[in-house]
Amino acid sequence: MTKTKTPPPRAAADIEEGTAFAPKFDASGLLPVVVTSAATGEVLMLAYMNDEALARTIETGEAQFWSRSRQRLWRKGEESGNTMRVVEMRTDCDQDALWLKVEMGGAEACCHTGRKSCFYRAVPIGKGAAAGVALTFVETEKLFDPKQVYGHARAAKGTLKTLK
Amino acid sequence: MTKTKTPPPRAAADIEEGTAFAPKFDASGLLPVVVTSAATGEVLMLAYMNDEALARTIETGEAQFWSRSRQRLWRKGEESGNTMRVVEMRTDCDQDALWLKVEMGGAEACCHTGRKSCFYRAVPIGKGAAAGVALTFVETEKLFDPKQVYGHARAAKGTLKTLK
Repeated sequence: MTKTKTPPPRAAADIEEGTAFAPKFDASGLLPVVVTSAATGEVLMLAYMNDEALARTIETGEAQFWSRSRQRLWRKGEESGNTMRVVEMRTDCDQDALWLKVEMGGAEACCHTGRKSCFYRAVPIGKGAAAGVALTFVETEKLFDPKQVYGHARAAKGTLKTLK
Repeated sequence: MTKTKTPPPRAAADIEEGTAFAPKFDASGLLPVVVTSAATGEVLMLAYMNDEALARTIETGEAQFWSRSRQRLWRKGEESGNTMRVVEMRTDCDQDALWLKVEMGGAEACCHTGRKSCFYRAVPIGKGAAAGVALTFVETEKLFDPKQVYGHARAAKGTLKTLK
């Protein structure tokens, strides 16, 4: 059996305190990406990038992701027009997550339900167990009509969530 | 072989437009959780909860997570004193991610490196490929000394990142 050399693991100090970008993808080859609005600071969505989506985003400045359900590269807004221009990209201490601050195009609605943010419902705290708590809508306004944008059939069948 | 009844899958419309909290844990039983500062809005960290961490957080209002590297429940701040009081918890459209707005205790430093946020380095956009880009420090101030808080030996060995 031939032994092949593997690169030595990077020291934690290098990863955490260095300037070399060394994104650590998970077992599926993905990195979680927090997306916030550069204008308001609110969290718009949590999505995932593979290495290609990351490279394209860095190169073009337009956010691209990996759609886990469709198993393909996904340029945000390719169907809806709700694109994302990256104002700033940050990595975290152990480089296994990213944070994008973005300016939205189109209707400025990130969520496929038509809302600005995907996080439009609150979970009550201190009012009982996780199972059985009732969510509260904190954002109800829809900035576009998913049926118009994605087509009636897909909206009715609930397949829009595959856009995530 | 005895067949057991499995509950029917929830319709997408219920998950996305309903008020029933139905968190969708991944294959490892975890949910990604975006944590932002209630005071400044900045993203502090991305962590993970299992069902127990979620239940305890909802019950107590103090953020608890699942440490993937230690494989145990992790009450944020249990060692450092940098606890997190949950001001608001939100779930996203398909209920497979959470967003916590928190007030921090202690030194108000979320990151084990001593910094306020784990996202203290920026990745340059439009300046070359992902591999090889140099990170820029956007937050350098350390609000506590990791060596003092976690002990010299562990800080030097770089095992602090297992706190994530």
